[in-house]
Amino acid sequence: MTANPAPEVSLACLGGGHGLYQTLKAARLASPHRITAIVTVADDGGSSGRLRRELGQIPPGDLRMAISALAGDSEESQFWASVLQHRFGGNGALAGHAVGNLLIAGLTELIGDEQQALDHVAGLTNSFGRVLPMALEPLEIEAEVAGLDDDPRIMREVRGQVAVASTPGTVRRVRLVPERPAANPAAVEAIRDADMITLGPGSWFSSVIPHLLVPGIADAIRESRGLRVVVLNLTAEAGETAGFSHERHIHMLAQHADGLRLDRVLVDASVLPSAGERRYLEATAGKLGATVVYDDIRAVSADGRATDIHDPEKLSAALSRVWRGR
Amino acid sequence: MTANPAPEVSLACLGGGHGLYQTLKAARLASPHRITAIVTVADDGGSSGRLRRELGQIPPGDLRMAISALAGDSEESQFWASVLQHRFGGNGALAGHAVGNLLIAGLTELIGDEQQALDHVAGLTNSFGRVLPMALEPLEIEAEVAGLDDDPRIMREVRGQVAVASTPGTVRRVRLVPERPAANPAAVEAIRDADMITLGPGSWFSSVIPHLLVPGIADAIRESRGLRVVVLNLTAEAGETAGFSHERHIHMLAQHADGLRLDRVLVDASVLPSAGERRYLEATAGKLGATVVYDDIRAVSADGRATDIHDPEKLSAALSRVWRGR
Repeated sequence: MTANPAPEVSLACLGGGHGLYQTLKAARLASPHRITAIVTVADDGGSSGRLRRELGQIPPGDLRMAISALAGDSEESQFWASVLQHRFGGNGALAGHAVGNLLIAGLTELIGDEQQALDHVAGLTNSFGRVLPMALEPLEIEAEVAGLDDDPRIMREVRGQVAVASTPGTVRRVRLVPERPAANPAAVEAIRDADMITLGPGSWFSSVIPHLLVPGIADAIRESRGLRVVVLNLTAEAGETAGFSHERHIHMLAQHADGLRLDRVLVDASVLPSAGERRYLEATAGKLGATVVYDDIRAVSADGRATDIHDPEKLSAALSRVWRGR
Repeated sequence: MTANPAPEVSLACLGGGHGLYQTLKAARLASPHRITAIVTVADDGGSSGRLRRELGQIPPGDLRMAISALAGDSEESQFWASVLQHRFGGNGALAGHAVGNLLIAGLTELIGDEQQALDHVAGLTNSFGRVLPMALEPLEIEAEVAGLDDDPRIMREVRGQVAVASTPGTVRRVRLVPERPAANPAAVEAIRDADMITLGPGSWFSSVIPHLLVPGIADAIRESRGLRVVVLNLTAEAGETAGFSHERHIHMLAQHADGLRLDRVLVDASVLPSAGERRYLEATAGKLGATVVYDDIRAVSADGRATDIHDPEKLSAALSRVWRGR
């Protein structure tokens, strides 16, 4: 499955959405001892948003994607992963709902325990490792956004993940509502036990930084003896990080977590080709204790063009190299 | 599990709704060689009705109940049965939907094959035997109903399972729309292979008689060398069979299926205590080739009162006696 097995390593992968999905696919390929996915719970869009509003539960979408990414290799496991990921068509009350979201929501309502519900669904896909929400209550994101008015000094509060992710303004800072939520104890334990912790890639303000705003999670990262690796996005995202440089991404992490310490920043070599650009990133990373690792982690499309998503096989190999070179 | 095992018998149980659920529970207790549940597909109420309207699929509710009734005995199997049966609460778009209905619907949409979808869901509950829709397209029931007008001779057409089941008039005849639908070939095969075929109990016009209106099913019953057993309802139902005697229930079967032959009519002894009443039923059953068997099959509530539902253990024992006494 991989040229870079890491059978001795316990991994904790923090993030959300498609970024975490790619990281988990990469982690699976490295055949580590253990993978724990720790997932944001602030999504308010699409199927997840509808379910959290209707049932008052943690939004299930990112959790479902993580379970699918970690699904076993057997035909049966992959079949159930495709069931979880399937979205209802048509134009009725179910249209757009992922089957797995409904299953997680139904199990949670029946059992009254989100984590047990996730474990049962992960049993269907024989998923490797475990998928944990970062907190056991649904959270909201609120951002201070500049540039929405003619006067650029005016800051406005933008509430909700979808609104923040698509704001035409410039996000200065985000917070969670309620603030300083309790961490999922199992997530804290997984971070403390991890040999390597990955953070990112993903929507920076809505999938990555929220982890640092949960005091229990941030403390566990700070106090970890594991290797803390930030995987940078390939490009700034339209909306929430439009125009942000790579070093600004790192700076934003520091700004949202007092005393944050990192060990490695993994970035695709092709997106920062010049020594001049690299120097800025290295300086910012250095302030947090991290060295920058340049590697080839970018997916290439069938027609040979560079894409904006990470290639799980390349990312797996790069993470294995980071681990071996620690 | 039972004092009346029937390990050599292959059973085909025809019906729908709660009546079929009780019969399947009873069949499970008899530990037969095989159970095939053959289920009506004309429901248009509740969660099933919403799904058939939204997605154009076979209504899944009665199929889901049959899968649950046949669930394995392990904790895991019973847990998944409880998941399938769980209905969403609240008052939103999902309220009232059974999780199993959504799962069957999602799998059907993904695979494009209702039977495969059902088999996959039945795999979750490790269900014994197999659950088959009687036809592979959603059907409607249309009834000729008298007594809705001041003039009792005026007949009106009432369309839809819910409307028929709750009509304040007297149902004279029902038909399926579309008429003469193709039978599910697997259902025909199961009936042909069965040593014993049960029909009923259940809502007579909407769960029992529809089977006789599918030519392939009716032919298979007619040509069967198995023991054909009708399990009569304990009482007439408010709505569709209000005021119907037991013999009128049997007469209605004959009226809807030319050349129908039956072997046994199983009825609870307590609901027909007098010889006079029994004679009418026996005469009607005799015209179809059937003898009437009186047994104790009625559930008793915790406070010792007779209920209107069949007791699975008693029904199991009674069916075993019918089989042994053939």
